Amino acid sequence: MPIGTINNRDVLLAPSILSADFANLGRDANAAVAAGADWLQIDVMDGVFVPNISVGLPVVASLRKAVNTTLDCHLMIVQPERYVADFAKAGANHITVHAEATTHLHRTIQQIKQLGLTAGVALNPATPLGVLDEILPYIDLVLIMSVNPGFGGQEYIQTSTAKIARLRHLLDAHGYPDMHIQVDGGVSARNVAEIAAAGANNIVAGSAIFTPQRPAAEMIELMRAALREH
Amino acid sequence: MPIGTINNRDVLLAPSILSADFANLGRDANAAVAAGADWLQIDVMDGVFVPNISVGLPVVASLRKAVNTTLDCHLMIVQPERYVADFAKAGANHITVHAEATTHLHRTIQQIKQLGLTAGVALNPATPLGVLDEILPYIDLVLIMSVNPGFGGQEYIQTSTAKIARLRHLLDAHGYPDMHIQVDGGVSARNVAEIAAAGANNIVAGSAIFTPQRPAAEMIELMRAALREH
Amino acid sequence: MPIGTINNRDVLLAPSILSADFANLGRDANAAVAAGADWLQIDVMDGVFVPNISVGLPVVASLRKAVNTTLDCHLMIVQPERYVADFAKAGANHITVHAEATTHLHRTIQQIKQLGLTAGVALNPATPLGVLDEILPYIDLVLIMSVNPGFGGQEYIQTSTAKIARLRHLLDAHGYPDMHIQVDGGVSARNVAEIAAAGANNIVAGSAIFTPQRPAAEMIELMRAALREH
Amino acid sequence: MPIGTINNRDVLLAPSILSADFANLGRDANAAVAAGADWLQIDVMDGVFVPNISVGLPVVASLRKAVNTTLDCHLMIVQPERYVADFAKAGANHITVHAEATTHLHRTIQQIKQLGLTAGVALNPATPLGVLDEILPYIDLVLIMSVNPGFGGQEYIQTSTAKIARLRHLLDAHGYPDMHIQVDGGVSARNVAEIAAAGANNIVAGSAIFTPQRPAAEMIELMRAALREH
Amino acid sequence: MPIGTINNRDVLLAPSILSADFANLGRDANAAVAAGADWLQIDVMDGVFVPNISVGLPVVASLRKAVNTTLDCHLMIVQPERYVADFAKAGANHITVHAEATTHLHRTIQQIKQLGLTAGVALNPATPLGVLDEILPYIDLVLIMSVNPGFGGQEYIQTSTAKIARLRHLLDAHGYPDMHIQVDGGVSARNVAEIAAAGANNIVAGSAIFTPQRPAAEMIELMRAALREH
Amino acid sequence: MPIGTINNRDVLLAPSILSADFANLGRDANAAVAAGADWLQIDVMDGVFVPNISVGLPVVASLRKAVNTTLDCHLMIVQPERYVADFAKAGANHITVHAEATTHLHRTIQQIKQLGLTAGVALNPATPLGVLDEILPYIDLVLIMSVNPGFGGQEYIQTSTAKIARLRHLLDAHGYPDMHIQVDGGVSARNVAEIAAAGANNIVAGSAIFTPQRPAAEMIELMRAALREH
Repeated sequence: MPIGTINNRDVLLAPSILSADFANLGRDANAAVAAGADWLQIDVMDGVFVPNISVGLPVVASLRKAVNTTLDCHLMIVQPERYVADFAKAGANHITVHAEATTHLHRTIQQIKQLGLTAGVALNPATPLGVLDEILPYIDLVLIMSVNPGFGGQEYIQTSTAKIARLRHLLDAHGYPDMHIQVDGGVSARNVAEIAAAGANNIVAGSAIFTPQRPAAEMIELMRAALREH
Repeated sequence: MPIGTINNRDVLLAPSILSADFANLGRDANAAVAAGADWLQIDVMDGVFVPNISVGLPVVASLRKAVNTTLDCHLMIVQPERYVADFAKAGANHITVHAEATTHLHRTIQQIKQLGLTAGVALNPATPLGVLDEILPYIDLVLIMSVNPGFGGQEYIQTSTAKIARLRHLLDAHGYPDMHIQVDGGVSARNVAEIAAAGANNIVAGSAIFTPQRPAAEMIELMRAALREH
Repeated sequence: MPIGTINNRDVLLAPSILSADFANLGRDANAAVAAGADWLQIDVMDGVFVPNISVGLPVVASLRKAVNTTLDCHLMIVQPERYVADFAKAGANHITVHAEATTHLHRTIQQIKQLGLTAGVALNPATPLGVLDEILPYIDLVLIMSVNPGFGGQEYIQTSTAKIARLRHLLDAHGYPDMHIQVDGGVSARNVAEIAAAGANNIVAGSAIFTPQRPAAEMIELMRAALREH
Repeated sequence: MPIGTINNRDVLLAPSILSADFANLGRDANAAVAAGADWLQIDVMDGVFVPNISVGLPVVASLRKAVNTTLDCHLMIVQPERYVADFAKAGANHITVHAEATTHLHRTIQQIKQLGLTAGVALNPATPLGVLDEILPYIDLVLIMSVNPGFGGQEYIQTSTAKIARLRHLLDAHGYPDMHIQVDGGVSARNVAEIAAAGANNIVAGSAIFTPQRPAAEMIELMRAALREH
Repeated sequence: MPIGTINNRDVLLAPSILSADFANLGRDANAAVAAGADWLQIDVMDGVFVPNISVGLPVVASLRKAVNTTLDCHLMIVQPERYVADFAKAGANHITVHAEATTHLHRTIQQIKQLGLTAGVALNPATPLGVLDEILPYIDLVLIMSVNPGFGGQEYIQTSTAKIARLRHLLDAHGYPDMHIQVDGGVSARNVAEIAAAGANNIVAGSAIFTPQRPAAEMIELMRAALREH
Repeated sequence: MPIGTINNRDVLLAPSILSADFANLGRDANAAVAAGADWLQIDVMDGVFVPNISVGLPVVASLRKAVNTTLDCHLMIVQPERYVADFAKAGANHITVHAEATTHLHRTIQQIKQLGLTAGVALNPATPLGVLDEILPYIDLVLIMSVNPGFGGQEYIQTSTAKIARLRHLLDAHGYPDMHIQVDGGVSARNVAEIAAAGANNIVAGSAIFTPQRPAAEMIELMRAALREH
């Protein structure tokens, strides 16, 4: 169930559990799903590829039993090919790996697909779209990072919107109408419409969904409203 | 509140959350604490030092708010000096680092202590006690790994008991009566008494505490009974 | 002696010794040469850049004495600049390094050329052609990997053919008529003609040449026939 | 004070202290400044990113006290994000990092700017201009390496001139008229005019400025003359 | 069939194929076996743990089919745990890993044993015997390197003999009478008796066995004679 | 010319240039030499082995021409074997490498000695003396780090004195009367006598020699006085 439609393109919401309460993760995750979140993003950080250590395999396994939705593992780890099979076994439905993290990107994507999952490639803010040239035929999703992964206290990088627009244009030009463009970092009700209008259809949001002050349902409704009002 | 006493030495239980339900971590952790667990061990694995990715900073921060007990972060990560301050800030009371993971062990321990925490050094199964020679004056705990960290499906390595006994002997000989000897891996009610009798006073247990079949309180009572009956 | 001609471009065969019998390498290599193989490819894998460990310097040195043909060392190793001089000394005539393996690609190529060898740059399947932008003036060969190097049981990646065609077009447009386009992975008599027609003129083949069932000469003749019949 | 003007573009000279006398660095640096050098380049090499170990933080700190000019730290080190704050604190005014050295280029540049410095991105000779696609809006300078950094005895790579010209064209086309194009490696009075004419406006020179035979002022005058005569 | 007996201990010869002719490896290996070599050592070097790249998996697989003797793979590679299963599958009977190459030594040895092979631990010349403290109960062989692995042109390090003697003494004292002490580097007929007398019972020899001038059988006979005459 | 004698052992002073003024390094170095410093220590830090980047090859080369004394390069770098020959060529008389920095310690020491230099092994504060077991016959100096190298604002680690005493005892017991014990970190006139009395005979001092407030000669005289008064 999309949270809105822009330019005839359905927009999907992917709450990131990184901002949830890890003492009550099942509760928070289910609240988001009940409020219409189409899938959940699990930010896996290894402290080496990015300067933070977040969650990994046992958290995915526990979530798999607790919620009934698409589990999207965003692997911010070095050499993700080492762990793709483990995350699939733990219950992931979708895995995104970073183009900057592996010299065997095609093989890693191939592994993910052979395991029956959908696959994505993430690009850091400074990574050019050109690195996608040869991998587009093999993936389901491109993740445009709109903050630098793993660093704290970041805001949405404004030039990400233009990058998304260029990518959507490129996908249309080369015949990839169904490719997801996911965006992650600093997205909230304030900027979601503009970002979706540029071409993103898969919106990751963390603190804009999970916040101690208000229930996830309310926060998601703000996102919906922003898209409607566009 | 110790779970037993052997050779006039109190034995402390440290349930490892690695076997808990990560969708209901606050619940599981509090059950263990209510049943008498003196502190909780959080197994931080980065997928580089050990072949598993478990949990990290945000999980510690959430647990800090949810439970009122000693949080012991066992950092199975490369170059732990990079993250010591972050784990302290997230709410850790104790941090153990691996001797094999850093070439600056003294500095890392010094950092932990300067942050007001207690500090431990962990040794992999094949690591000799000799690596402790110069660091003993600075630490509060030695963790004897009785399985290989991060690898699945391991059983208690039998020679660990003799290693613990040699370490306790060495600590007594050099005047460290209050040093904790923690043991981690494959410990259960079946072998806990023998291990404690050898000199360990801080028992990490995961699947022997957190199991879907029986409540943590019952499992902990089995441990107590084993110690009493010794 | 080329094994065929397509679009007025001679096609050269480079049997890869990776599929030969390493207990009788001189015999197998000479059989291939006698049957018309123009050069031999030696796949050097270090177990770090790629997930396999194959052969290295002493094998090149022994082959140099045993066969009289061009020895092409395809270095699937990290930081190839460390070993370029050693492979030249061992008897290599041509060295190909991976663009993904070094941050000093120009320097590495420069070293190879200063040693009097010809030099190539290899691209993994997901690596875009854009990485060649600044290095084309300095090299003799581009190797398009049509499988992921080092991983077992791979088939020819179909989009490699279009990548080869784009590269040949780009080389023609920028004035590099004599640049070799080498292709490696999953090539056999079934697809060699189509690949050569796309622009490849230097065909690496392993199991399509060296097979316990039939002599190399027969296998090479199948390749020739495929090119003739195109 | 520029050392010349070509195509209405002022040309700035940045002597590299790498060729100075490190026993009398203040003297050499001040001689260059007195002779009109607009800023000084400090080549920081870590022996890991490049095969040389040169100078680092304490040298910058001492120079800061000794000379009154722009200190430009060219970080030829792995993961420069680890040291950006330290170099700023030591007294750097400008920091250039290598695109090949970090997977978090945007974040690193952001850090430099937030510290109040100007920021540059360096490209090794084989690195394509395409890696600049997403970072141009955030930087003040692009450094085109015209030798391979850290390797000894290199000459100016002739194709660098065309690379500079393509970059200047690209900057003009995308609206970056004030971006510095710095060039480093093998530049002297013999080729400076041609290089500046191609679009470089920030000329790094080491042995062409600091030489035991003649004073820096004379060497700089040769550069000026070359630009005038163009 | 041992090549001699010293102090009532049988001495076994392990020719290292590193000095054989890799164009005729089956021939050379069988010559050594025919002349009484009890097992063959295959020196696997990855160019990262040691500064040489030698041979790997496909060479073991070919040798397995060609010779009928114990194949001993001496893994001079980083993180040998990654490849232990592959070498077993290729046909190794025994695997030795370096204590300096892995932080999970116990686990690596455990893997080798679970695969049904015998296992050894190698120590570089400067590595103290103390690193064996906890692993002795799990292994079948200790390899004392008497040259620095991977570096060329080395001679037998004289203090190795005393190291071997101390190790044999230690093994006797702790109850490991059947543990092999293997020695590798610079051993020939000139020094083999003294080395065996010190406690080594498993002699690796490369250029002392495989030499273009004389057949392996003659060279091995020289070794036998040296042991007899002691 | 020693700065004192304790227990019939001459004590040598090695000012570390790390605290000198790098804009006037020749001046500072010569002042120390004129005041009786027997050799100069050059702290080479690569930002990888230790968290600081200091100075390297060109600084050694300039100093070589400027001062006439023993140049001691303390390599706080990873894999020092890569740079030993370069530092010798730049003018070093003595090179110390860290036991923690290389897996080929014997080979690295061998290289240093073959280049005609004296050689030392440095131990970080937590590194046990046991790592010296096999290397003592090959070296001239052991450096006991009494602070953690590369970290700022450290004080002398008190247990270093006992470590020095144990090492001197061990050296006497095994017949190494001429081995230097160097100590580095937090040494000043306040503690130098006690440290020398424990067995150190080669005292590195940085900020205790080079300070903006007083000339090096005065500071050195304070050290002499402290030794006399003992």
